[in-house]
Amino acid sequence: MKSLILFAHGARAASWAAPFERLRDASQARLPDVAVSLAFLELMEPRLPAEAARLIGAGCTEISIVPVFLGQGGHLLRDLPALVAQLRVDHPGVAIKVAGAVGEDPAVLEAMTNYCVSAI
Amino acid sequence: MKSLILFAHGARAASWAAPFERLRDASQARLPDVAVSLAFLELMEPRLPAEAARLIGAGCTEISIVPVFLGQGGHLLRDLPALVAQLRVDHPGVAIKVAGAVGEDPAVLEAMTNYCVSAI
Repeated sequence: MKSLILFAHGARAASWAAPFERLRDASQARLPDVAVSLAFLELMEPRLPAEAARLIGAGCTEISIVPVFLGQGGHLLRDLPALVAQLRVDHPGVAIKVAGAVGEDPAVLEAMTNYCVSAI
Repeated sequence: MKSLILFAHGARAASWAAPFERLRDASQARLPDVAVSLAFLELMEPRLPAEAARLIGAGCTEISIVPVFLGQGGHLLRDLPALVAQLRVDHPGVAIKVAGAVGEDPAVLEAMTNYCVSAI
């Protein structure tokens, strides 16, 4: 079984999660044979190690992680690689790959540009 | 003169700013008669109050602020409204409007979904 984990920052305000939940649901609708879930770096649950362990326990053998971050700061340069390195130690039989930040994608940039331009 | 300020979080890592700079440049190219600039909440310069003051000093009378955030957490629920309220006190002759978070836009969600789905 394959899984796709959308990895987001987390926040104290519950409202923070809403667009990530929409993103998860929209991605799941497009990938009916993949387990799509959210995991957070901090402040919200589930955290990445627990969510990955849950998926692996359910039979997942391949995990793709997409950082739902706008840019590449310390969380993606240091925190996520450390978490993924530990996942690979803890689950050596599982293939784990990590995509670039969502905000670095050219089509996402174009959609954001359209939105910014429309706000004037 | 109108201006569009793209308001982002900021981070310690200089690499964080790159997609926001691309967003600024792409928006500026689409809005040649508008002053488009970036401002940060914390950790990076310029901060919003200083950037707004600079634009107003240069003759700007209308400012649109777009929060380049994925979700609506405490920074958009509390910090940005407080900053904007102070801007309105400090610059009573300037029209200031604030858009919703970039990540809440349906077309941005769709582009992010496409990216996430392609990562599997």
